[in-house]
Amino acid sequence: MSAREPLLEGRRAVIVSGGTLGPWALTELQEDDYLIGADRGAYFLVENGRTPDLSIGDFDSVAPDELEAVRCGSRTFVSCDPVMKDWTDTEMALVWALDRGPREIRMLGVLGTRLDHSLANIQLLVQALRRGIPCSIADAHNELTLTDGSLALLSSRFTHVSLLPLTPEVKGVTLDGFRYPLQDAVLTMGQSLGVSNVQEQPTARIFVREGLLLVIRSLD
Amino acid sequence: MSAREPLLEGRRAVIVSGGTLGPWALTELQEDDYLIGADRGAYFLVENGRTPDLSIGDFDSVAPDELEAVRCGSRTFVSCDPVMKDWTDTEMALVWALDRGPREIRMLGVLGTRLDHSLANIQLLVQALRRGIPCSIADAHNELTLTDGSLALLSSRFTHVSLLPLTPEVKGVTLDGFRYPLQDAVLTMGQSLGVSNVQEQPTARIFVREGLLLVIRSLD
Repeated sequence: MSAREPLLEGRRAVIVSGGTLGPWALTELQEDDYLIGADRGAYFLVENGRTPDLSIGDFDSVAPDELEAVRCGSRTFVSCDPVMKDWTDTEMALVWALDRGPREIRMLGVLGTRLDHSLANIQLLVQALRRGIPCSIADAHNELTLTDGSLALLSSRFTHVSLLPLTPEVKGVTLDGFRYPLQDAVLTMGQSLGVSNVQEQPTARIFVREGLLLVIRSLD
Repeated sequence: MSAREPLLEGRRAVIVSGGTLGPWALTELQEDDYLIGADRGAYFLVENGRTPDLSIGDFDSVAPDELEAVRCGSRTFVSCDPVMKDWTDTEMALVWALDRGPREIRMLGVLGTRLDHSLANIQLLVQALRRGIPCSIADAHNELTLTDGSLALLSSRFTHVSLLPLTPEVKGVTLDGFRYPLQDAVLTMGQSLGVSNVQEQPTARIFVREGLLLVIRSLD
């Protein structure tokens, strides 16, 4: 990856990857976003008249004519050998973004039919958290983020909120503004206590003292 | 839950839960299975001429006439208040099974459209592992299990194998019989190194020294 690429300080990076994409993904895009298409996500952007700032991947999921459209329609194009690489396309895109220090990263459509890829993509949130860059995943039905401290949730179309530990335990969990409150609770991986809460205040807050907590907002 | 329920020593317990069910789920069932239907999964069994040994849940996902069919068509029927319960239907079914000491537990169809439920159900594998009872999840496209020691994979219709940490790190990972071998490797949550391996021997083996490793077999 080239050191000549611009730093993204103050900008939001949006990664559009394979998985389930649709018109909802286009409505997510904002004018100043640094737009990254990963593999099939790059073709989705080009096909819909957008110009990825970067298209990256092994492109094993796009046809030759689609690949040509991506190559011509992207500001920067990075292709890698599908056999040799140790990373998924989405991880390559995320690392590229993280290395350039954006204000925030939004990943779209990274949840799809391949369960293993979806789970690996969700776990990528850990990498962003370790680097101190706010990162979230969205598809048509879900929005996911990860916290090891505090998080404020503003009202949205997602009414249901589920909390799942990504460490064996998450300690000191306090919820404010939810139907089922928690006060200094412990959430243990493998127990479903945190599933299907409901946000009841315009701003709801989640506090965590220790551990990694995955926050999933979803339509019912 | 009643202490008069039989112990399941030596038998396999199969939990059929909501999520994506279909004819594939029926082909999974064996004659001696102790059959548990959780919520909509109970109706799926009854609808397909099976008699659940236990139907359990809040049954908020079945219509009144379907609920009546479940009540009449099950050997034991346990219904709980949907508002008050802290557990998902699938966790209630799993705990019931674990408490009765089966040889093995198979969970079918617990992966569906609600991402939070799917993830919570995958994390239930941790609870079974802690209790020392082999447990797996299957749907039409994936088969999941969890290990903290060694695991042998026999040939199956699932060619792809992905390995994902369920602890921040999994240490001493050694793979035998796979296209991409690993020797005493460390897998870190948030890195996609373990995604999309391929089983190449009739019996492939996975060894783990420390940590919890989720093993996902999938169709391409």
